[in-house]
Amino acid sequence: MSRTGERGVPEGRRGERAAWLDAVAWNEQGLVPAIAQEAASGRVLMLAWMNREALAETVRSGYAVYWSRSRQRLWRKGESSGHRQRVREVHLDCDGDTVLLVVEQAGGIACHTGRAHCFFRRLQEGGWEVVEPVIEAPETIYGGTRDD
Amino acid sequence: MSRTGERGVPEGRRGERAAWLDAVAWNEQGLVPAIAQEAASGRVLMLAWMNREALAETVRSGYAVYWSRSRQRLWRKGESSGHRQRVREVHLDCDGDTVLLVVEQAGGIACHTGRAHCFFRRLQEGGWEVVEPVIEAPETIYGGTRDD
Repeated sequence: MSRTGERGVPEGRRGERAAWLDAVAWNEQGLVPAIAQEAASGRVLMLAWMNREALAETVRSGYAVYWSRSRQRLWRKGESSGHRQRVREVHLDCDGDTVLLVVEQAGGIACHTGRAHCFFRRLQEGGWEVVEPVIEAPETIYGGTRDD
Repeated sequence: MSRTGERGVPEGRRGERAAWLDAVAWNEQGLVPAIAQEAASGRVLMLAWMNREALAETVRSGYAVYWSRSRQRLWRKGESSGHRQRVREVHLDCDGDTVLLVVEQAGGIACHTGRAHCFFRRLQEGGWEVVEPVIEAPETIYGGTRDD
């Protein structure tokens, strides 16, 4: 017996109640911010957003799935670039309104700019300085179209 | 000559233009999520929100200042608990809509529950399990009133 969530997507394991999804304090848009941290390095890779379906699929599949606010659809991280995120741990914070994923980052590139992570600008001398190199050009990664 | 932001609070160093604050993609409430990561351990401590004034004061003072959405006022982290966060680095992500602070956490306690960090619940066997101990009871930290 499996439970299904909105849109008929099964939630979690067979027979599992979705109480753990109900414990998340979704915001008024039904979203929660999710931080991805690289397991080996401890590096904070990115922050994206999840809806209930994205978090359920993340846990079910073992790969990070976000909700793209700009495209208004599920965003299976790495689906076009190959830069998927294998999820090793899922954490929830004290208020239940932020998720932390501990992941293995395929290709060592989390950012759509071709950098290892998204926080490549650092405040220095009163301005944002780019402090991380581009590992692979986005044109090469995406074949000309920006994606994930 | 110093520039002042809304509410007459000086922004950044003397004579500095606030272009770096303009580069942040504040949301429709004028806020941006800010992740605090511990410098020494790499541990992700918490996520909170900042408005322009909070980020400006963070940089000016060198200590993390957030915007409390529940209290609708500036939240100088640690002001009552002493668990301040000394800011060593400030990063901005590719889309400009998330800030990452690299901090030194005073007292080794970032969470109002008395734990080292806020992500102390981990998804295991289909439920959230508490995987971090309370280091100091909140009653001791705050003298009976929940605060920061």
